[in-house]
Amino acid sequence: MDITIDRESGEPIYRQVVREIQGMIHSGALPEGFLLPPERRLAAALGVNRSTVLSAYRELKALGLVDAHVGRGTAVLRAPAPNQGVVGTPWRQLFRESVARAHDPIISDLLALTERRDVISFSIGLPAPELLPLETLGELTSELLSEVGAPLFLHCPTEGHSPLRQTLAQWVAVRGIRARTSEVLVVSGSQQGLDLIARIFIDPNDTVVVEDPTYVGALQSFRAAGARIVSIPVDENGMQTDILASVLERERPKLIYTLPTYQNPSGAVMNIDRRRHLLEIASRWHLPILEDDPYSELRYDGEALPSLKALDEEDRVLYQSTFSKVLFPGLRVGYLVVPPIVLRQLVLAKQGADLHANSFSQYLIDRFIQDGHFASHLEKSRAAYRRRRDAMAVALGQDPSLGIEYSKPHGGFYFWCRVPDGIEQSALLANAAARGVVYLPGRACFATDPPEHFLRLNFSHATEDSIKVGVERLLDAVREASGEIPLPDADWPTTSPVV
Amino acid sequence: MDITIDRESGEPIYRQVVREIQGMIHSGALPEGFLLPPERRLAAALGVNRSTVLSAYRELKALGLVDAHVGRGTAVLRAPAPNQGVVGTPWRQLFRESVARAHDPIISDLLALTERRDVISFSIGLPAPELLPLETLGELTSELLSEVGAPLFLHCPTEGHSPLRQTLAQWVAVRGIRARTSEVLVVSGSQQGLDLIARIFIDPNDTVVVEDPTYVGALQSFRAAGARIVSIPVDENGMQTDILASVLERERPKLIYTLPTYQNPSGAVMNIDRRRHLLEIASRWHLPILEDDPYSELRYDGEALPSLKALDEEDRVLYQSTFSKVLFPGLRVGYLVVPPIVLRQLVLAKQGADLHANSFSQYLIDRFIQDGHFASHLEKSRAAYRRRRDAMAVALGQDPSLGIEYSKPHGGFYFWCRVPDGIEQSALLANAAARGVVYLPGRACFATDPPEHFLRLNFSHATEDSIKVGVERLLDAVREASGEIPLPDADWPTTSPVV
Repeated sequence: MDITIDRESGEPIYRQVVREIQGMIHSGALPEGFLLPPERRLAAALGVNRSTVLSAYRELKALGLVDAHVGRGTAVLRAPAPNQGVVGTPWRQLFRESVARAHDPIISDLLALTERRDVISFSIGLPAPELLPLETLGELTSELLSEVGAPLFLHCPTEGHSPLRQTLAQWVAVRGIRARTSEVLVVSGSQQGLDLIARIFIDPNDTVVVEDPTYVGALQSFRAAGARIVSIPVDENGMQTDILASVLERERPKLIYTLPTYQNPSGAVMNIDRRRHLLEIASRWHLPILEDDPYSELRYDGEALPSLKALDEEDRVLYQSTFSKVLFPGLRVGYLVVPPIVLRQLVLAKQGADLHANSFSQYLIDRFIQDGHFASHLEKSRAAYRRRRDAMAVALGQDPSLGIEYSKPHGGFYFWCRVPDGIEQSALLANAAARGVVYLPGRACFATDPPEHFLRLNFSHATEDSIKVGVERLLDAVREASGEIPLPDADWPTTSPVV
Repeated sequence: MDITIDRESGEPIYRQVVREIQGMIHSGALPEGFLLPPERRLAAALGVNRSTVLSAYRELKALGLVDAHVGRGTAVLRAPAPNQGVVGTPWRQLFRESVARAHDPIISDLLALTERRDVISFSIGLPAPELLPLETLGELTSELLSEVGAPLFLHCPTEGHSPLRQTLAQWVAVRGIRARTSEVLVVSGSQQGLDLIARIFIDPNDTVVVEDPTYVGALQSFRAAGARIVSIPVDENGMQTDILASVLERERPKLIYTLPTYQNPSGAVMNIDRRRHLLEIASRWHLPILEDDPYSELRYDGEALPSLKALDEEDRVLYQSTFSKVLFPGLRVGYLVVPPIVLRQLVLAKQGADLHANSFSQYLIDRFIQDGHFASHLEKSRAAYRRRRDAMAVALGQDPSLGIEYSKPHGGFYFWCRVPDGIEQSALLANAAARGVVYLPGRACFATDPPEHFLRLNFSHATEDSIKVGVERLLDAVREASGEIPLPDADWPTTSPVV
């Protein structure tokens, strides 16, 4: 039951509740016999007094729409009026229990804002469109059409196009990872990798360890699988493995999820001691580690560290990377390097999920790497993104009086900024969007109890000029928000209450 | 725990069990402290006497590998020998409980056989590669690269590329379906559509009604979600809705899944009376119907019937179709037409599954339809597939003495054949594969209690000449299998026992 309350409309709240429920009964969304939630529960969910819900239920009874019996609850009395012609399907009653609360629509919403021409987007982790080697891609496509032909458009194995798997096994060797072709699985983007891992490991209430903060999409996948999430704080040297060690004295997770290099969102790099420590701890408790590594090739300065997978002597690291950050987000191609026994289960899960990744894209990426374009594209991208990072650092540094804290990342895609405590995040985001700049509110990146004062700013997507203008708009929004008196929490719910 | 028994090897079965478990202990797959399944359960799963398992456990104890205590069970005693160097991760113990039994690898295995050049494949539902309009696709790609550029390779909305959604809303109007653009969702192939529907509707032990037989991939998706499956028999006029009506007197499913037109695998067309009856029944019990419609545009003769969605006046039909059967299986693009409230939940599930479908493919398909190529390609395909269907009918009809029963389908991709009772299916499939022809064993298409004497033969993928040769090979295999004395059931398990 989805009831939206508008506290500023002037209409009494109990009337709004009556109107919403009335609408659902008339539309058939609430069928005859449907039990309304107990007053106390609805009141809690809406953040209103119980007496408000009581008044609403009383009015619905007076309207002859529901009937209340002690001990049985309040039931919908009338089916939709027969003259409406259409009897609705009670969709909400058919959805899974967990479905309405499983996901956070924030990414969809931000993608939609990003599409507006007048808005400068620091919100999503996208590569620079100007850098895409369109001419080369056109040439490779022509070559493939004449040399390969029909198989570009036909099925390929669930594990992935075999030549691409071979190419990837060689490619990751550069990162110190010894992979056999049989250990490489091509997936429809990193998000699918996370989803498949969740599907084969996570039963409801299984524990997953993540970093705090961490990648929003990983939280979505683990939550959708019903995982209990335990989060370990990240500092400038990555996940605090001492805290992990003490947590593991009482928790038995199925999986440890980490982004050790240029972490999303914090930009942190896990140092070599902690990498070793993490592997030791995982070994002690026989735990698998999922290493998500979309950014390691985007290093702008600082030393390169070996991936966990490269340090792993026990075959316990499940390694994942993607082409979406460096090259082609729209082609939806990522890959995993995992032990064969895990690969087999992932393949069966992938077969049920979408049969296989797009064939054409796999041929194209394989050719792109084989012909040396990927290496030169990476070099070009690193140079451009380094300049954009520097431009953002300069822009953010121009008014220290605002009290915005951040450190300049050595690689990856993001600045992780902390604004002073008094600033209310919803207001800041609205204010920034009104001025034509959007970012990812940091609260989305925390598993539980999100602090209110973090922002994630992407610097790869916008040009240097836009970065300058966008950060100025953002600083103006912070200035304005700093001046405002924050509203008390109780009157300012930021998400629609859902029962 | 995955133990394979070979009843024909001559090695005593208890020894085989010892050897397998020993291997798992040494490899670290069974870690120290792991409890072996109770003897009775392992015996049942392997289809052997309990005394066989008792002997095996006794020998493992004698070897010092396990220890048994009354009331505590049999536990693995020794970790892998330290001189092995690598301590394995106990992957099997970390997988979800349901994971090992959730999927049937038959489709992967058949796809692999299909890739062998010397094998004629009637097994998978693939379009004819010779018909693919490669030249047109090349021209459209060049156009798109110069006209659209970077967005081809960048993100697009989770709902799908907006112009393609508009195009699809118009395209389905030809099938009598009134769809608004906001009701169209682009998915990464039909298999993903099924998976997403299962994700938003099916909690473990929820009931789903399917046809008997039905599409293998749908069974996989529903089973992976933990559904209880109730199957309704199909005859030459489609799902037997009378039986459905009586089943609904005692069952409350979340969903009714049907392929009303050129059903996979039976080729049946649900007649108009049953279509109306199905909608009536669904309305009476407020149930949604998932109409899977990949084949309706491939009609070779007989009258065209309106889809359930076109007949639906209550917005209770979730409609799904795909481009994989008619055009591009490798591009993984399908679509759903569903009420907005369902679309919203599907979008959130899709966002967690793979963010969005491949952008390039969506632009390409949109252009292909808009420029009129799809309509002409359909016409060409229908003509070619009609000839292939007729060739297969002639080939199958040449030796009536074999007792193979089938009816010539009016559309779609498949002949559904029944071979005489005495023929053992595993032997027949092995025999046919040895002769260079493969098909889908009918048993994969039944939810429960599969009968042994059905084969599904695809006629769209192979050329007319290959169809002739392939059917002759198949008839030879049937001839040979008919002459064999079938082995008694008890000694002939056809699937590896899995605990």
